Amino acid sequence: MFQIDVVLSPALLPFHKVQNKHVVVVDILRATSTIVTAISEGATHVKTVLDAEEAKTFSLNGYLSAGERNGAKMEGFDMGNSPFECMNGKVLNKKLALTTTNGTKCFDAAKEAGAQTILAGSFLNIDATVEWLKNHPADCIILCAGWKNKVNLEDTLYAGLLTQKLIDSNVATTEDDGALMAMDILKMAGTDFADYLKKSSHYQRLSHLHHHEDMVYCLKQSTIEVVVGMKDDVLLRL
Amino acid sequence: MFQIDVVLSPALLPFHKVQNKHVVVVDILRATSTIVTAISEGATHVKTVLDAEEAKTFSLNGYLSAGERNGAKMEGFDMGNSPFECMNGKVLNKKLALTTTNGTKCFDAAKEAGAQTILAGSFLNIDATVEWLKNHPADCIILCAGWKNKVNLEDTLYAGLLTQKLIDSNVATTEDDGALMAMDILKMAGTDFADYLKKSSHYQRLSHLHHHEDMVYCLKQSTIEVVVGMKDDVLLRL
Repeated sequence: MFQIDVVLSPALLPFHKVQNKHVVVVDILRATSTIVTAISEGATHVKTVLDAEEAKTFSLNGYLSAGERNGAKMEGFDMGNSPFECMNGKVLNKKLALTTTNGTKCFDAAKEAGAQTILAGSFLNIDATVEWLKNHPADCIILCAGWKNKVNLEDTLYAGLLTQKLIDSNVATTEDDGALMAMDILKMAGTDFADYLKKSSHYQRLSHLHHHEDMVYCLKQSTIEVVVGMKDDVLLRL
Repeated sequence: MFQIDVVLSPALLPFHKVQNKHVVVVDILRATSTIVTAISEGATHVKTVLDAEEAKTFSLNGYLSAGERNGAKMEGFDMGNSPFECMNGKVLNKKLALTTTNGTKCFDAAKEAGAQTILAGSFLNIDATVEWLKNHPADCIILCAGWKNKVNLEDTLYAGLLTQKLIDSNVATTEDDGALMAMDILKMAGTDFADYLKKSSHYQRLSHLHHHEDMVYCLKQSTIEVVVGMKDDVLLRL
């Protein structure tokens, strides 16, 4: 049996033992959902970057650049942050530099803390991720990206579902209050996640930005079979 | 209507706007429960201190010193951290220096961040605290002490109940995902908090230390009428 901890914000990671554990980073709306989609659509790899300036340096080295400001594609970028922009062959055999402040901080923090493996988690490939973790047993941290270091409901909900699935598979257990809280949030959410998340701050922010279709897509479970993890600082199919 | 934020760990306080807000610090097991008990039992004020060394300096200045290590009273101290040790006239008209690492960090952080008022919250005086907040309307942060900067269930549960009571009183609202999560934890807990908390890490730690009576006491609601707040770096009856 391996142990699961749920870390509700990257600012809390320093208080958990990370060394030699798997870390599953989740930023449901929308970074890790877009990353998983891009890899499943044939992108060779995804590099997350903190800001537009860093994305531009990758753009000069043959990367497609993805980034948004206030909900619209940034000037000079190839695409925005929506998973839908990764479809229809647009990223096939391409390298993608994705601008995501919250997500990039998590991947960097997990690496610095000595994680054994770093995965990008999403509802889209949750069952594939569960299978991978079952086949690579080690203690596991689910790291929620949150929003500007604050906790958020949608990443916590994913953490609750991943924890519950691993416990139900009889491969894992938890003594961590963050994990217990996340599983309670899962129970409160019931089966209609979109309806449950209507009260959340990020949902309301994205609703205002007409990103409703993105949210509906990002909450679909196990429509994608690939597992995405970090190697040499980039995210690719494991 | 004032806004409520729930901050699940002191490490997350820097990411919330605190200036000019009320901050309710909660460390249910057992610091703030003991503080509220001491004040209601006639202590003139309570000073929280980080460690034994700091407590000793106050002891030399006429304070009763309270502190524990591994669940037992520390050598040279007047008492342990149990609220029961504040009863039967023991703290009447006395100043108390209470050793609490998690609690002290919260009071210090709230002060540094520019809080308008800092209260010590507990289930014991939750209704008195609600009335005070209704009579002093301002945006409010409920700051959970947690455990070594990790989140915990019992402080989150208190935050959920305080938030729910203020919202039900039609004086407050929230757009904060931490507050929404805490209210969901409250719903999951039902009416028997002790039973719900049996799964929590801290509950199990204290159970092993034979502190079961303390826990039962700390989960009682509104048995105490006093409101406790900070003035000139000490906690006293407001």
